[in-house]
Amino acid sequence: MTSVTGSSAPPRPRPGGRTARIREEVLAAARAELTEHGYDALTVDTVAARAGVHRTTVYRRWRDVGGLIADLFAAASDLDWHPPDTGSLCGDLTGLNREIQDSFTEESSIAMALIAVSFRSEPAARALRQLWDGRYDQCEIVVERAIQRGEIPSGTDARALLIAATAPLYHQLVLLRTPADPELPERAARAAVLAAQGGAFEMSAR
Amino acid sequence: MTSVTGSSAPPRPRPGGRTARIREEVLAAARAELTEHGYDALTVDTVAARAGVHRTTVYRRWRDVGGLIADLFAAASDLDWHPPDTGSLCGDLTGLNREIQDSFTEESSIAMALIAVSFRSEPAARALRQLWDGRYDQCEIVVERAIQRGEIPSGTDARALLIAATAPLYHQLVLLRTPADPELPERAARAAVLAAQGGAFEMSAR
Repeated sequence: MTSVTGSSAPPRPRPGGRTARIREEVLAAARAELTEHGYDALTVDTVAARAGVHRTTVYRRWRDVGGLIADLFAAASDLDWHPPDTGSLCGDLTGLNREIQDSFTEESSIAMALIAVSFRSEPAARALRQLWDGRYDQCEIVVERAIQRGEIPSGTDARALLIAATAPLYHQLVLLRTPADPELPERAARAAVLAAQGGAFEMSAR
Repeated sequence: MTSVTGSSAPPRPRPGGRTARIREEVLAAARAELTEHGYDALTVDTVAARAGVHRTTVYRRWRDVGGLIADLFAAASDLDWHPPDTGSLCGDLTGLNREIQDSFTEESSIAMALIAVSFRSEPAARALRQLWDGRYDQCEIVVERAIQRGEIPSGTDARALLIAATAPLYHQLVLLRTPADPELPERAARAAVLAAQGGAFEMSAR
């Protein structure tokens, strides 16, 4: 699925039978309703109708729109996702930034829709923060590998480096809403690598 | 006034008489309603009542909530604002980042409220982009001075450098909604300076 934090792989087939299939169908309908008509128009009834599922099934399992939104965030945190492994820090961060750029510029971006919802609902804001935390944890291996290769100082703060490398993408695409700049993923990655090599993210330097 | 892009100076006294005073009162009421009760609760009538102004005055001048929001953005673009001038690029960018951090962490942040509105209204999204564009234009002098001092290469792209320097603040405060990190303004500034010195933002390198 498309994740807020980068991965835009197609949904994995889920194990399990009818229950898992219904969840997929209901969440797909919720994603489509959210990206097409926005948060204000999202109701359990329209999602149930679009999924072709009885409304009581949706009410029983998800209770309300908040429950649907929470499950959309849960489904977006793809535990099987791994960051790029290209052999260089700049290559890995560039690949990561390309995934982020793709997830925000694709048509009907669920990533953009979930961020918009986070400005409407405190539980959604918390879920988004958790999703990002998980994704940054998954990306720390990129920094560890770069340290092992001797590309950057051993005391580099992985999270600070990852935020510096990816933040210009979020700023341009989510806040400034500028069209995708094909050069930006690599430029932002290169800038973060140069800063890291200069010691900008060394933990002792904070 | 508090601007989305940094300045959190108190409102300048405006020239002019009753008309200017009414605008100040109505916009102050709109800011208070927006930060206290949010966009959904914002109506011309509640703003007029809070400002102690007759509702027909507000309807005649601002027409609707969209007109009020547009004028809030217009009022936030402070043409008299100037970026810090500390004598070093890192000092100037750190000062700028501190202003940004202050504007998002103060109680009832209008900066945060206007960004939230930009996810609800296309005209507000355009107004926010224009506001940011203007502020980045005002900040280019910081980069020009650094080039004149020989701190960074002469072909440095001012906008790219400014976005790299400030984006981690917006990412942490607006999207991740983490508490203010007192070290972040300087760390993000220092990282951008190191990257610029390494040539990451040279226009020929793009």
